[in-house]
Amino acid sequence: MSTQPTNLPIYAVIMAGGSGERFWPLSRIRKPKQLLPLGANGATMLQEALDRIAPIVPADHVLIITSAVLRDPILEALPMLPARNVIAEPCKRNTAPCLALAAAEIIARDGSGNALMAVLTADHFIADVEAFRKNIGQALRHAERTGDLVTLGIMPSRPETGYGYIEVESLTNKDADAIKVAAFREKPDQQTALTYLHDGKHLWNSGMFFWRVDALHKVMLSVLPEVGERILSMATSLASLHDAAATAAVSSTSDASLTELQTTFAAMPDISIDYGVMERASNVAVVPASFRWDDVGSWDSLLRLREADEAGNVTVGDALTIDAHRNVVVNAGPANHVVSIVGADNLVVVVTPDATLVCSADRAQDVKRAVTTLRSQGRTDVL
Amino acid sequence: MSTQPTNLPIYAVIMAGGSGERFWPLSRIRKPKQLLPLGANGATMLQEALDRIAPIVPADHVLIITSAVLRDPILEALPMLPARNVIAEPCKRNTAPCLALAAAEIIARDGSGNALMAVLTADHFIADVEAFRKNIGQALRHAERTGDLVTLGIMPSRPETGYGYIEVESLTNKDADAIKVAAFREKPDQQTALTYLHDGKHLWNSGMFFWRVDALHKVMLSVLPEVGERILSMATSLASLHDAAATAAVSSTSDASLTELQTTFAAMPDISIDYGVMERASNVAVVPASFRWDDVGSWDSLLRLREADEAGNVTVGDALTIDAHRNVVVNAGPANHVVSIVGADNLVVVVTPDATLVCSADRAQDVKRAVTTLRSQGRTDVL
Repeated sequence: MSTQPTNLPIYAVIMAGGSGERFWPLSRIRKPKQLLPLGANGATMLQEALDRIAPIVPADHVLIITSAVLRDPILEALPMLPARNVIAEPCKRNTAPCLALAAAEIIARDGSGNALMAVLTADHFIADVEAFRKNIGQALRHAERTGDLVTLGIMPSRPETGYGYIEVESLTNKDADAIKVAAFREKPDQQTALTYLHDGKHLWNSGMFFWRVDALHKVMLSVLPEVGERILSMATSLASLHDAAATAAVSSTSDASLTELQTTFAAMPDISIDYGVMERASNVAVVPASFRWDDVGSWDSLLRLREADEAGNVTVGDALTIDAHRNVVVNAGPANHVVSIVGADNLVVVVTPDATLVCSADRAQDVKRAVTTLRSQGRTDVL
Repeated sequence: MSTQPTNLPIYAVIMAGGSGERFWPLSRIRKPKQLLPLGANGATMLQEALDRIAPIVPADHVLIITSAVLRDPILEALPMLPARNVIAEPCKRNTAPCLALAAAEIIARDGSGNALMAVLTADHFIADVEAFRKNIGQALRHAERTGDLVTLGIMPSRPETGYGYIEVESLTNKDADAIKVAAFREKPDQQTALTYLHDGKHLWNSGMFFWRVDALHKVMLSVLPEVGERILSMATSLASLHDAAATAAVSSTSDASLTELQTTFAAMPDISIDYGVMERASNVAVVPASFRWDDVGSWDSLLRLREADEAGNVTVGDALTIDAHRNVVVNAGPANHVVSIVGADNLVVVVTPDATLVCSADRAQDVKRAVTTLRSQGRTDVL
């Protein structure tokens, strides 16, 4: 059954290079948030992302861009995915070079250059999958028809100061697939966030993007040429590498192509797609999301996303709570390890074989401070 | 160097049969509080108790009365103690039968029957060891001279409702070694405890007792004959068992003596020395303690007894505290296990290889509820 909403072929690009500090000690250098079993029924968030998009994009068209250190763990976690679809960035760069590399890979595979590209996230919770797929369809159709760069915007539900915002003239035009974006707004202060929450003109920037590859290429050449001008060169290197791989030839040609790709990638600036492209482009539109969304930013988000017991505790694994309320308890310790919470409220408690975290739920974003400290102490064994 | 304060020989009797529920998960069925390294420099509390009494009572005269399950763990922990000095009760009884058994053992060893017996605790913190030894000397001399049953009373420092109290006419007679006890008072309510704290007539019952064995025997015969009348019978059985052990003879005689001892012990009522003897006797005196004392009743007592860091945290083992205050953190997990507390205050966090406890410090006495629940779930593997 194909439910593809467009005429052009669609590629999904999932950026999965996260460092996973905020879910320590469950997340580790080689096991970031996307590979944790935080999804329903113990699925990884990356698996859930693939399942969400499966009816629209076949597995062969799903590209995962990650870091060298995470490529093997991701391939292990997703054995159904072709190995060549999990692409390690040659070095650490921001999202603009990352998506330019993805565009080059799509051009290398699909010579026409006007395939569609859906940039999706694998570290967010999405409640209503059908609504999500409908929104994706809207965004892709709009991108196909207009050549716009399309984002997915989330209706704010609180005066969040930790996200960027998308500003539109008005959110009331319900007929259009997508609405023209007036401006991108950086993370606001508390007062501004309150205004954004109620003025009917602002959406959270979800980090999901939809465009024709040729449209992205054209915009990049115009607003970020130091990236845009390198896309075709990277596509040529990638096509050459694919040919060599297909004939199982380890040749001086493929070595040269790899070196060329690495050099080209490393030469691009460390700049985000939001700042480098979206904020500078004039043809940007947004599809307001009609599903409940959460960025699962830290352990306390499980209190919003998981079903709690009568005392408000969210527990994963074996946990004994006695007169304890509104705690997140994750027992990923050794087999038969018991975790007991007695008379304590509003905590995050995470137990693994080599590390234990106890944190106030309202300080869960500070878990990364523990990671920073341990790193400075050389305790990479537990990171 | 002998600093023995009396003419009669002295035996120390340490009751060490505790179940150790309030220090779970560090304390276990086979490792109660007395065997935990809660003392200074990581010594067990039992070892500290022996060290405290060493200049007054030689190791050969220290008897430890415990349960069958704890005898081996105690012998392992105290290899310097003669094995025959660690005595397992034939079955679980309260303190009156336990001390009758100890008296019988002393009679079996020291036929005269007028040796002195110091009943000491191994699960309390005592700050000033020299003051402790001085008080012990006072109590023993008074017991030797008068035949009184002597207790050690602790000057109250708070309106504690969890202890029994000793009432005297007045605490102002500083010359006497010991003061006549007017009455024993059960655990008071809050208002009464406040009165006791300030009226200069009440002391906490420390659970430490001093008497001549013949004096105890005589009082027991009078006020608790169902126990007192069995002491000499038990002494005879014990002497017979010691003779058999000395000749390495496993004989029908020693079997019969053991059976007789077990039967006699089991026939005694399940009654405490306080309720069964001290409250009923007329010749009871108390020595007011001049040392700082703490019953180390639960994890939060470490906040009083151990040196804290600048943020008020008491940590044992490897712990990383970040913006965390007044916590007790005990890391007894596997080697290299990290315990991190982030932005959380007033907690008890204890990590062992097979169990983790997180508890509000002011609810530390409820740790036993976790133990009770785990027992009811059949989780004896972690108890």
